[in-house]
Amino acid sequence: MASYLGEHIHVSVFGQSHSPAIGVVVDGLPAGERVDMEELGRFLKRRAPGQNATSTPRKEADLPQFLSGLVDDVTCGAPLAALIENTNTRSQDYAQLRDKPRPGHADFTAQVKYGGFQDVAGGGHFSGRLTAPLCIAGGICLQMLKRRGIEVAAHIASIAREADRPFDPMGESVETMDALKRAPFPVLDEKAGERMRKVILQAKEEGDSVGGIVECLVTGVPAGLGEPMFGGMENRLAAALFGIPAVKGVEFGAGFGVATMRGSENNDPFTVKDGKVVTQTNRAGGILGGITNGMPLVFRLAFKPTPSIAREQQTVSLSKKQVEELVVTGRHDPCIVPRAVPVVEAVTALVLSDLLFS
Amino acid sequence: MASYLGEHIHVSVFGQSHSPAIGVVVDGLPAGERVDMEELGRFLKRRAPGQNATSTPRKEADLPQFLSGLVDDVTCGAPLAALIENTNTRSQDYAQLRDKPRPGHADFTAQVKYGGFQDVAGGGHFSGRLTAPLCIAGGICLQMLKRRGIEVAAHIASIAREADRPFDPMGESVETMDALKRAPFPVLDEKAGERMRKVILQAKEEGDSVGGIVECLVTGVPAGLGEPMFGGMENRLAAALFGIPAVKGVEFGAGFGVATMRGSENNDPFTVKDGKVVTQTNRAGGILGGITNGMPLVFRLAFKPTPSIAREQQTVSLSKKQVEELVVTGRHDPCIVPRAVPVVEAVTALVLSDLLFS
Amino acid sequence: MASYLGEHIHVSVFGQSHSPAIGVVVDGLPAGERVDMEELGRFLKRRAPGQNATSTPRKEADLPQFLSGLVDDVTCGAPLAALIENTNTRSQDYAQLRDKPRPGHADFTAQVKYGGFQDVAGGGHFSGRLTAPLCIAGGICLQMLKRRGIEVAAHIASIAREADRPFDPMGESVETMDALKRAPFPVLDEKAGERMRKVILQAKEEGDSVGGIVECLVTGVPAGLGEPMFGGMENRLAAALFGIPAVKGVEFGAGFGVATMRGSENNDPFTVKDGKVVTQTNRAGGILGGITNGMPLVFRLAFKPTPSIAREQQTVSLSKKQVEELVVTGRHDPCIVPRAVPVVEAVTALVLSDLLFS
Amino acid sequence: MASYLGEHIHVSVFGQSHSPAIGVVVDGLPAGERVDMEELGRFLKRRAPGQNATSTPRKEADLPQFLSGLVDDVTCGAPLAALIENTNTRSQDYAQLRDKPRPGHADFTAQVKYGGFQDVAGGGHFSGRLTAPLCIAGGICLQMLKRRGIEVAAHIASIAREADRPFDPMGESVETMDALKRAPFPVLDEKAGERMRKVILQAKEEGDSVGGIVECLVTGVPAGLGEPMFGGMENRLAAALFGIPAVKGVEFGAGFGVATMRGSENNDPFTVKDGKVVTQTNRAGGILGGITNGMPLVFRLAFKPTPSIAREQQTVSLSKKQVEELVVTGRHDPCIVPRAVPVVEAVTALVLSDLLFS
Repeated sequence: MASYLGEHIHVSVFGQSHSPAIGVVVDGLPAGERVDMEELGRFLKRRAPGQNATSTPRKEADLPQFLSGLVDDVTCGAPLAALIENTNTRSQDYAQLRDKPRPGHADFTAQVKYGGFQDVAGGGHFSGRLTAPLCIAGGICLQMLKRRGIEVAAHIASIAREADRPFDPMGESVETMDALKRAPFPVLDEKAGERMRKVILQAKEEGDSVGGIVECLVTGVPAGLGEPMFGGMENRLAAALFGIPAVKGVEFGAGFGVATMRGSENNDPFTVKDGKVVTQTNRAGGILGGITNGMPLVFRLAFKPTPSIAREQQTVSLSKKQVEELVVTGRHDPCIVPRAVPVVEAVTALVLSDLLFS
Repeated sequence: MASYLGEHIHVSVFGQSHSPAIGVVVDGLPAGERVDMEELGRFLKRRAPGQNATSTPRKEADLPQFLSGLVDDVTCGAPLAALIENTNTRSQDYAQLRDKPRPGHADFTAQVKYGGFQDVAGGGHFSGRLTAPLCIAGGICLQMLKRRGIEVAAHIASIAREADRPFDPMGESVETMDALKRAPFPVLDEKAGERMRKVILQAKEEGDSVGGIVECLVTGVPAGLGEPMFGGMENRLAAALFGIPAVKGVEFGAGFGVATMRGSENNDPFTVKDGKVVTQTNRAGGILGGITNGMPLVFRLAFKPTPSIAREQQTVSLSKKQVEELVVTGRHDPCIVPRAVPVVEAVTALVLSDLLFS
Repeated sequence: MASYLGEHIHVSVFGQSHSPAIGVVVDGLPAGERVDMEELGRFLKRRAPGQNATSTPRKEADLPQFLSGLVDDVTCGAPLAALIENTNTRSQDYAQLRDKPRPGHADFTAQVKYGGFQDVAGGGHFSGRLTAPLCIAGGICLQMLKRRGIEVAAHIASIAREADRPFDPMGESVETMDALKRAPFPVLDEKAGERMRKVILQAKEEGDSVGGIVECLVTGVPAGLGEPMFGGMENRLAAALFGIPAVKGVEFGAGFGVATMRGSENNDPFTVKDGKVVTQTNRAGGILGGITNGMPLVFRLAFKPTPSIAREQQTVSLSKKQVEELVVTGRHDPCIVPRAVPVVEAVTALVLSDLLFS
Repeated sequence: MASYLGEHIHVSVFGQSHSPAIGVVVDGLPAGERVDMEELGRFLKRRAPGQNATSTPRKEADLPQFLSGLVDDVTCGAPLAALIENTNTRSQDYAQLRDKPRPGHADFTAQVKYGGFQDVAGGGHFSGRLTAPLCIAGGICLQMLKRRGIEVAAHIASIAREADRPFDPMGESVETMDALKRAPFPVLDEKAGERMRKVILQAKEEGDSVGGIVECLVTGVPAGLGEPMFGGMENRLAAALFGIPAVKGVEFGAGFGVATMRGSENNDPFTVKDGKVVTQTNRAGGILGGITNGMPLVFRLAFKPTPSIAREQQTVSLSKKQVEELVVTGRHDPCIVPRAVPVVEAVTALVLSDLLFS
């Protein structure tokens, strides 16, 4: 297991920040699924940089070329392959990165693992740019899920100490979920959004970056998905979500909050609604014993602040084995969280599809 | 993926709470590894119930029988199989559980998934008792790791709002780590331990239960373990750790704390120590880009309060489709966290061994 | 991948020839499947030794004990575990096998791989005895398949140069297939069977052994099973069937015969029968492009002669690095083929079930 | 498992005969391996059509474009992706194939599996053209293996009833093996090659096709590769080799020949040569108990005659559910075997690399 994921819908991601192209192969998509290319384009644009002042001004076309797997925009059962060309490759001199690893990045661990042969330009395969192919694959799965009544939406739950209102764990309306997808800065409470943007710009001005939390909600999930123990829904989602760069924590339902709760507070009482067994609350985040119970899935991911900051940092020269100062040049997102929102949706869709289309 | 785990050291767990036996098959253990049976026995005893007033008084022998894979207590390269007999099977009438699912348990989701054929007695395959075979497999791996200078230790980081001092993310002494393993209630600060026990007993008296957090530290991990993206150390650990019943959140290094940090605060500066490149702090929890950087691994798991509580709870009759009251009988841990500590160590050892012995 | 198999119905086999027990864990069996224990007993007896003069006179009880996964003989969704105790363990001195590998056996390769720690007694984990747990798992799957109209039957296609009539690739009646399962020496042509038995006894008298071919037929397989390229039905069956000890070749449909055929002879013309598209012949063995076409599956496996023979053989002393003579003692099957027939059925059932119950 | 393969060197193949491109992603290649592009070009040319009168005159450029995974032709540890553009896409009308499946092809099974959404043009994903990306991936692995003293070579063992001399199972010289790779028609006995070409041209003239056998030899394989039971070298090779279109049988060492042998004839006696334990003969094909014994690997694959023949054949109209005649147009190889030789080498290299670089 490395840059591939899934048993039935098997995703294999390739590319480096500055290789000729990045892309993805998706093996196992059911045949006969139409890909709405405009919808997919809108989805990819949500992840693209340069949307507003809170993200890096670098522009990307990011229009995927489909190499296989589609006939007239409909899946044909064969592996789907798509690529995005990298237009601005090798424009800079990245040689120093091989000797002076950037704090908080994978430069040092890549050096250890690949013995100096790793592609250092722009972070190579560890670049956040590799989330674009994930969004192609996940964007297609999101369309397949929506067609079956499963809605996936995420929002910025917090940036630094500024928090949005949380999702109602009992579910949100499709309108609310859809609105988030049209929002350039996806929050439920616009006032909170304004405060968050201010915090991001403040960090940017100070040559720094900030972290935050993304919360994801999935409605319409049938009960019975997932297996016991290591095949649980939490296991599968976590195994995939930690593949998004900068994620350092994943929690489901009440999450770390359960640690301070009593059983009588945390247990969700069962009840009957419209002849259907449901829970009255949803502290479990829709999962009991690793298996979905028919309630919405709710989970949160902690994103660390972008490690690339304008401030001088301390690193070492690997060749000289001595401490040196480093200034990371280039333009970077002062906060990765807003652009991570569609990536969380995409990866969630991949995991759910892998279970649903088995 | 269900009740099995691992690519090279492949673990397959079986058994239900009241089946004739529970056990585990471990395929891929390197040949020539001696299993110290006394050490393993001590390790298993840490997970066993009835150690003190904070756990269920039910007694278990839990002496594993080894069926294969060992010749004179040394691994022979063939799959190792071990079982623990269930002595007190089918003593109670569990029929009502099939109709009245316990809140917070997998009774309802098992009913949906297995169509009424699931073994309801004692929670069946979802029982916390299934962590015993995990501890057999993990306990053997812990011995193999220790022999190679890798120490794994966990402690109770908090119960309800009572917190132990956290692990020093730069590492703890082997003595401190070993002492935790001999402690009946593994904490770093004994005073905090006393307060925690009080909180647990208080909940027990009130017919309730409490949750908590387990923190795990791994020292001696070589740099370079783990793969990019979905094969990262965080992905692999999380995929396994969520297999421990009651875990609702997993975080690495600074974890959810990164959300409120600046990049300049969170990035770990590199430095040189004894001619070796290390980081000056360890907010990353020993992992950068999914790959270990040679610093200690640090991570925390949130455990929900035991769902089995003595208080009356609301559930439904699945047959009558109406709300009913339920009182869960039997004796249960008012807090699962103390007994979960060795389970966390065991599962951690399985994941690390799977990567190390490939 | 080692002693485990399958994605959805995941089988993990354990045990050595002389370990306390051998057994199997089967994870992923659908819940609600009744296991007919008498039928399973009859199936296991077909593999058991001592049935007649052509096999080893060693007696085995081979009654499996079920440890988990069943409630009142019905699968409950939890992993099923079963074991067979080894009663005659460590009766002999096997120490010389560690130094003098038996030709045709895995003694030497095990020595290389496990560094001398392997269990040499009776061949350890490489013993043909390990096909017994495969028959437990496969025997249960055969019952599940039969319930769904899928019949699996194999016969002895040849021993040395004595050949049975081949299966009609267009299918055989259920009666013919069932009759094979009741036959102590499963052939379609009794006369050929007599000649085969004579050949076996002749080899036995001469202190030698003989090889042969097993042919397997599966009727009732729905069209559309299997995936392109590496997920094809041939790939999956071959990957599993080569796990049966002594198999050195696997061929589907016309098999190696296709090498001498013209396209016009080998292509199966399509036709319509009872409103259903079928092929007029079945040289393809029921598989086109890796995917089943609804015709019966037909395939053959070549089994090498039992490597354990009474005659003196040349080997080496690994410690002295010199050639030495070896006489393999103990009583062995002069031909493994008759007892391999149910094993082929069992492994076939495992592969088909893994695809069907996904 | 579908169009991907491997645990450590993970190959994912994409493309249809007439999609914009075909290609491959290879995840897990060790970093620091130089790809000799000229050597790779020569290797790919061996598979390319139009080499001589015995193959289809269709020309292909088949120059792969590398999208990622290489920095200055050296692997960088990131997934390697390569594609070959399809230049002659959608030139024909393939609509009739959707209704009238070609005998011997996957048209019918694809229709069943993909419900009419499959890409029928040129056989879609089932086209032999998909072996080109396998040759890119395998060609790189062949270079890595050769660097480590492992030589893989295959030859045409037979076409129809014309047979080449078999490989010496004790090994061939590197010169002999290399010579095969430069030969436009790879045989060991040129006279036999001439007879084979005659047989192919004869079939071609008669609007027909012929099958044949490819034999593969691998020298320099270390002892100890492969696992017991389902992880054996035979299992792994067979699971991959059956992914090559038209393969209907795979046999190792003496293969189906073992069926007519006595144990005393088939067992390979051990001996000592240059202080090393070897076998005196190599009927086992270098594998005992699934594990390599240090002797050369020898195996053979049966290829069916090209199903596309010029003669009129019987098929059915799926829509009308009635028998119809079909003439397959286009130009096709009258025998696929010569072009399959490098594909066998490529797939073999993938399997060996997956085990070696773990």
